[in-house]
Amino acid sequence: MSHPRGPLAQLRRGHEELVLELLRKHGPLSRGELGKLCQLSRTTLYDILAGLVSTGAVVTATQQDAPRGRGRPAETLTLNPDAGQAIGIDFARRAVHVAAVNLAHEVVGSASAPHPADLSWEERVDLADRLVGSLTDGGLRLGALSAIGVGVVGPVGWPEPEDDPAGLGPDEPAHPVQVLLSSRFGVPVLMDNNTRLAALGEAIWGAAAGGLDVLYLRLSHGVGGGLVVGGSLHRGAYGLSGEFGHITVDPDGAPCDCGGTGCLETVASIRAVLDAYRAAGGRAGDVPELAKATRAGDETALTLLEGVGATVGGVLAAVCNAIGPSVIVVGGELAETGAALIEPIERALRAQVMPVSRHRLSLRRATLGEAAGALGGIALVLHESPLLSRYPAGPDLASGLIDETERATRPTRQERQS
Amino acid sequence: MSHPRGPLAQLRRGHEELVLELLRKHGPLSRGELGKLCQLSRTTLYDILAGLVSTGAVVTATQQDAPRGRGRPAETLTLNPDAGQAIGIDFARRAVHVAAVNLAHEVVGSASAPHPADLSWEERVDLADRLVGSLTDGGLRLGALSAIGVGVVGPVGWPEPEDDPAGLGPDEPAHPVQVLLSSRFGVPVLMDNNTRLAALGEAIWGAAAGGLDVLYLRLSHGVGGGLVVGGSLHRGAYGLSGEFGHITVDPDGAPCDCGGTGCLETVASIRAVLDAYRAAGGRAGDVPELAKATRAGDETALTLLEGVGATVGGVLAAVCNAIGPSVIVVGGELAETGAALIEPIERALRAQVMPVSRHRLSLRRATLGEAAGALGGIALVLHESPLLSRYPAGPDLASGLIDETERATRPTRQERQS
Repeated sequence: MSHPRGPLAQLRRGHEELVLELLRKHGPLSRGELGKLCQLSRTTLYDILAGLVSTGAVVTATQQDAPRGRGRPAETLTLNPDAGQAIGIDFARRAVHVAAVNLAHEVVGSASAPHPADLSWEERVDLADRLVGSLTDGGLRLGALSAIGVGVVGPVGWPEPEDDPAGLGPDEPAHPVQVLLSSRFGVPVLMDNNTRLAALGEAIWGAAAGGLDVLYLRLSHGVGGGLVVGGSLHRGAYGLSGEFGHITVDPDGAPCDCGGTGCLETVASIRAVLDAYRAAGGRAGDVPELAKATRAGDETALTLLEGVGATVGGVLAAVCNAIGPSVIVVGGELAETGAALIEPIERALRAQVMPVSRHRLSLRRATLGEAAGALGGIALVLHESPLLSRYPAGPDLASGLIDETERATRPTRQERQS
Repeated sequence: MSHPRGPLAQLRRGHEELVLELLRKHGPLSRGELGKLCQLSRTTLYDILAGLVSTGAVVTATQQDAPRGRGRPAETLTLNPDAGQAIGIDFARRAVHVAAVNLAHEVVGSASAPHPADLSWEERVDLADRLVGSLTDGGLRLGALSAIGVGVVGPVGWPEPEDDPAGLGPDEPAHPVQVLLSSRFGVPVLMDNNTRLAALGEAIWGAAAGGLDVLYLRLSHGVGGGLVVGGSLHRGAYGLSGEFGHITVDPDGAPCDCGGTGCLETVASIRAVLDAYRAAGGRAGDVPELAKATRAGDETALTLLEGVGATVGGVLAAVCNAIGPSVIVVGGELAETGAALIEPIERALRAQVMPVSRHRLSLRRATLGEAAGALGGIALVLHESPLLSRYPAGPDLASGLIDETERATRPTRQERQS
């Protein structure tokens, strides 16, 4: 998928945004009122409005309270409250998560369903479609859906450098799920790595809401993360940004799945931590059991997490010195061990980050849980689709969101048992 | 200095850019021709043109070859070839460097002069003014100068986080040189750290010309650097981006000037390297002597630089895994030791960066030398001033630039002797 990027296409996009922004701010307006506010020529404005009406983003209505007998009643234009929804889908390893927003950028629902790891892409898309359907029954209409933002596991197919010397990124759909979804919904499908999208979700609706420069670290089966730079998702030249899990912490350490040696992931993934705990004589089959051991004051667990936290904090300090974020968000299942891990992370971070940065950094636990990736997908659409390139600041949405998430995920759990 | 940032101000800036872009592309145009090409309303276009003519960016001319006797001859509009120059000034610790471009974004000259480290800001600005004067004698006219981009040593005054929770950056001139220059030249003065500006300069006109995601490391009296992300200078939340010199490489290492311990700067600054060389029995008073020793095959020097390079390469690998650049540029006087340092840097970098990134990374020596910061200042103006927000790709300029730099710096050397 490519958007036209010349000055005229950008200008048209700017005009569309301006009109949508004015309607969002002022409510229903006549063409004359819009013309005064936006300062576009009549021809240009009518052209832009025709486009917005044809996509269903804007609807016309006849003003009922206009004085009669003085020519045609004035027609007003207003945002279509049921239109222009953006959908985010996170295709995680063993679950699909979806979330949706309306044109006012309010999160109107989210839903999740687990599945076996070997489910085909066709079946995953079917599952996503059913989840989206469960949201639309709750009042959404997808007739004017503008785009879908999708997160997937692993690097998203970027061209090799020899085919793309300037690092401009992919021009063609590179992933089967992109093809499946765009043919099913008939809209553009934007795609990125789901951990990176979780970073964007946390920066807009979660723990770092309102933060423009955010570092997100996920400690899960793998160790990864993402960067938000100046409010936008950072990708790097070849889509390989945020690979904190593959920063070397011990050149003589264990081999890593990436082909490297002694990466952070060999020390701080769920498996690495549980293996180390069991090797030290501890007993825990999963993270909740390890968390329980730390809460019971198990010295083996506490010492282990102290060491893991120190290593993680050192890596975060190095990255902070390089990019100077204002907020660091730590998520993933391992963060559920709480203070036993977070406190040593924070101590090492503050010890090793430049002294001038120490009091400027805020370290926080992630708050969006499993919905983070899907919400990040929506944020991607709001940032990058031609029509919807703005989003409101997060806190208002985030407070409403938690209820919506809980409500919307309940039917999904029933669905899973049926 | 703050620019208006609302949708209407952005739109106006977009219109101005569009008009300048069309004049750059098509040459002289009548108002009617411009109207057809830009699709703006007559009122809007005339308003934009009046602004551009009043700042001197655009000039009007009567078309001489228009048929007579058919009303007034058509007036055409064209870019003012002598107008809209942007100037970059790098106030380094012991020298001032200046460079200038015309409205077509061609580098038209650069000049440098050394000075004692304790020179006052007033005297440094006088010196910069004389250097700019030496360029204007060479054909520049500053009547329509649009902005000055300035680099200074150390962090540029950013507000404390409590005064600026969103990390939006400074609103007021924070530096005496900004006040002095803007009152002398009567134009906006944009400012940033000069090492970061050198990163931008190298990314646009130097070793990484055309690269959108560039990591620049400077190994000098201090160790620092800068990041270019998506073609723009990266600042971080509080202007503390690119502090690679303060990434911890040995938690038990030497104390650093920043207040930390075992920072890269304690291992890889000029002083650290020369001290270590002398402690190991070598004799070198400065970097050129050290470089000479390595070229003569001095084992002490080669072993030392091997170790320093391995440490530097490890830090670069960590930062690359975090931000995924396509090009790494290494500059600063210590890079003058050449392969003895660069090769071990490259070996450690490639050993420790994620295997999937290894063949995507290009490590290069900086090419702009002492002009990098001043050129970066110009780039800042081209990126951030309202009128001049685009720049052409680098290679064409870079080839012309080298001659201009050499020619223009010669009088300065005479000046220094007088």
